[in-house]
Amino acid sequence: MQLIALKGLPLVKQGDDIGELIARAANEQGARIQDGDVVVVGQSIVSKAEGNVIDLREVKPSGQAERIAKRLDKDPREVEVILQQSKEIVRLRHVIISRTKHGFVCANAGVDHSNVDPDHVTILPPEPDASATRIKETIKRILGVDVAVIVSDTQGRPHRCGVLGFAVGVAGMSPLLDLRGRRDLYGKELRTTITSPADALAAAAVAVMGEADEGTPVVVVKGATYRRGGEGARELVRPPERDLFT
Amino acid sequence: MQLIALKGLPLVKQGDDIGELIARAANEQGARIQDGDVVVVGQSIVSKAEGNVIDLREVKPSGQAERIAKRLDKDPREVEVILQQSKEIVRLRHVIISRTKHGFVCANAGVDHSNVDPDHVTILPPEPDASATRIKETIKRILGVDVAVIVSDTQGRPHRCGVLGFAVGVAGMSPLLDLRGRRDLYGKELRTTITSPADALAAAAVAVMGEADEGTPVVVVKGATYRRGGEGARELVRPPERDLFT
Repeated sequence: MQLIALKGLPLVKQGDDIGELIARAANEQGARIQDGDVVVVGQSIVSKAEGNVIDLREVKPSGQAERIAKRLDKDPREVEVILQQSKEIVRLRHVIISRTKHGFVCANAGVDHSNVDPDHVTILPPEPDASATRIKETIKRILGVDVAVIVSDTQGRPHRCGVLGFAVGVAGMSPLLDLRGRRDLYGKELRTTITSPADALAAAAVAVMGEADEGTPVVVVKGATYRRGGEGARELVRPPERDLFT
Repeated sequence: MQLIALKGLPLVKQGDDIGELIARAANEQGARIQDGDVVVVGQSIVSKAEGNVIDLREVKPSGQAERIAKRLDKDPREVEVILQQSKEIVRLRHVIISRTKHGFVCANAGVDHSNVDPDHVTILPPEPDASATRIKETIKRILGVDVAVIVSDTQGRPHRCGVLGFAVGVAGMSPLLDLRGRRDLYGKELRTTITSPADALAAAAVAVMGEADEGTPVVVVKGATYRRGGEGARELVRPPERDLFT
């Protein structure tokens, strides 16, 4: 399996077509994107291209946002955006841990004030699976190849230090791989039965993005094994009543 | 970055030297292990080689183990082993979520009855950083190259479906990468400040292990960027009082 950071991508702005930018950069780099490759795209450029950017000067914080902002020493307008992106608050400790409208449990609901104009924040794409699908279809149209696309985000996680890349949008691949029924060397069923290739590839790709200079938010993965199809990143969301850890 | 599953490793048994087996298999495969490569080794072969295998017929379950076993419909002897491997029980829902003596929060304290004789279970290496260091030193001695070594385990995680590879032992690399002070395009400090390359590489490598046929629990990663040094996988353990999610 090989991961290649795509170079030469321009600074993304609202209205850009990410799939087109990727296809063009790949052609210029001579990095052939081929059938079966997985293209991992950082959510921040997807959010920017789609205009998922909020001008904080137009945000009126609610009373709840004011209270949380005071407690956590944050900008009440940013807290308001976080609350609007959330279905449910999970924890309040230094940061807001919430369940986003997509179902992801993460810090600050993915609201980010880095790499964007002052007084602005980016939010996660409202339908990241649809964003991934659009990128996949554009690449198919321009380059004529069938790829899988993962929209990745960088998030902290419970119990462990350090952030990791996660898949928040998936198209063209099953985010989970069901190995149930596979037997071990002694004929017993394997302990680990359902793996999450989309999250594993997102983690690896985000590590490669981070290694490179700024401006390489796209990584092409070659030689990954996955199944086509699937229902998008929503498959990765564990319903709270089925969570074993909480 | 490239990940290569190491082929030709024999079935590992107690007393085997994993570092030697890796060096020999690499030579036979013609897969040159080079300075700076990261060698990811699945914990199950490390545990077997080190004799971290428990004969359940010799285990006397405590009253607590009997009660939990009844409630979760598990083998009380296996529950006893899990309790012995744990510092603290975190949750009891279908499986036992506990904090292992190393500090990792995972299901069943890493106790595994797959790929081992009936009536036996493997436990995590008691000192996985030391295990990783021994493998690193053996590879250095035989092949003359400085590599980093990650001992990986496959674990579920809160809030998301599907298991993922994690680093439980690390030698020769800093498991965390501190990017604090890096600025974004607008001169603001980056949101994601400390990444976890060891976990990212473990996730990627375990995905590659899982894709291949059985018996490929070793993956060589080339071209990964990491810092040498570090304090081992214990750096990845987030102390409960500093956990943001729980």
